[in-house]
Amino acid sequence: MWAAGAQRRAGLALAAAAAAAAAAVLALAAWRRRRPLREVLFFPSPPSCTEALLAEATEPGGAARPCPCPLPRGDCSLSRLLRRLLSARRSLEICLFAFSSPQLGRAVQLLHRRGVRVRVVTDAQYMGLQGSQIGLLRHAGIQVRHDQENGYMHHKFAIVDGRMLITGSLNWTTQAIQNNRENVLVMEDAEYVKPFLDEFERIWEEYNPINYRFFSKGNK
Amino acid sequence: MWAAGAQRRAGLALAAAAAAAAAAVLALAAWRRRRPLREVLFFPSPPSCTEALLAEATEPGGAARPCPCPLPRGDCSLSRLLRRLLSARRSLEICLFAFSSPQLGRAVQLLHRRGVRVRVVTDAQYMGLQGSQIGLLRHAGIQVRHDQENGYMHHKFAIVDGRMLITGSLNWTTQAIQNNRENVLVMEDAEYVKPFLDEFERIWEEYNPINYRFFSKGNK
Repeated sequence: MWAAGAQRRAGLALAAAAAAAAAAVLALAAWRRRRPLREVLFFPSPPSCTEALLAEATEPGGAARPCPCPLPRGDCSLSRLLRRLLSARRSLEICLFAFSSPQLGRAVQLLHRRGVRVRVVTDAQYMGLQGSQIGLLRHAGIQVRHDQENGYMHHKFAIVDGRMLITGSLNWTTQAIQNNRENVLVMEDAEYVKPFLDEFERIWEEYNPINYRFFSKGNK
Repeated sequence: MWAAGAQRRAGLALAAAAAAAAAAVLALAAWRRRRPLREVLFFPSPPSCTEALLAEATEPGGAARPCPCPLPRGDCSLSRLLRRLLSARRSLEICLFAFSSPQLGRAVQLLHRRGVRVRVVTDAQYMGLQGSQIGLLRHAGIQVRHDQENGYMHHKFAIVDGRMLITGSLNWTTQAIQNNRENVLVMEDAEYVKPFLDEFERIWEEYNPINYRFFSKGNK
């Protein structure tokens, strides 16, 4: 009896050790699977055709109509940035000093039409300049708010579905994309995403049009 | 004998399970200890006195001479950024579109005097403007290289001791620090630090003065 008991205890202990090892392996695999996305994009990005990317996002699985333009259409920093943006399913917050890239403007409008809740914060001084996408976004029914401050609203970030932060030195302009030395970080670490979401909500509330000050000519 | 053998096996199995559990706890603790720094700073940062911080970095442990200025000297985004910079012991790479903040300029000169290897890359169009720190840094013997491109060298990052990346939307100007909406990320994740180090070395080599083109008037 005693021997049988000891044997049973040995068996149980071995089973416990095996279970602990299996749990550790599973936890490690889950951690690897859940490992947050960390990507760095550098610019300039060569001029490239993004029609196929935008068409696929407009009509997933639809018949591809090849674009006749001569631009290359391979993988580049702009196409990667576009793919990350177009992965939005529920929400997109954008906080940009300058936004004049037609390609990124079309992507944002496309997401809006697809039912993604898009909110844009931008800088008052820049938004009225020729080539700015802000007027087009507003015309499409997208909510845009701007500052009324002396300083610049100089952020350049976007948040996709409340879980992916896209931030860096890059303003969303063709000049910056094609000619400047720029960086963009794509990150899912909550330590970075959460403060930027909070910053967006803070600015969004502060720039609420009910807070805008309108001066009559007499007050000049 | 058989019973004693089973007992020994049970004991060994239990010891193995305990050792595995202890190893897992130690690994977790080590991972937590080694957890990379992740910090987000937002600006504007209120005008503040950084004399004490710079004095402490000049002469660690030296007698503190209180600054008579009336500015607050508490914790703020600028003081945190300064602290991170001043933690450099071996090397500091700086890649900045615009650098005119006297406080950050003094910190960089201080590190240079302390024997830290400082290298600066900047934008040609901006570096000659009034208030730029670039001339002072060069005068102090710090290596500076600039672009000769049509686009802007628009990065805004620094790397401390090859292990800490400081990057964001912030140009190192008093205007940006005190008036603009800006962000700075401080990060030690190798996935971010390594590509920025590589980008710096690429630009540093490309902007080597032996590659500068000098045109005579006849070639205009």
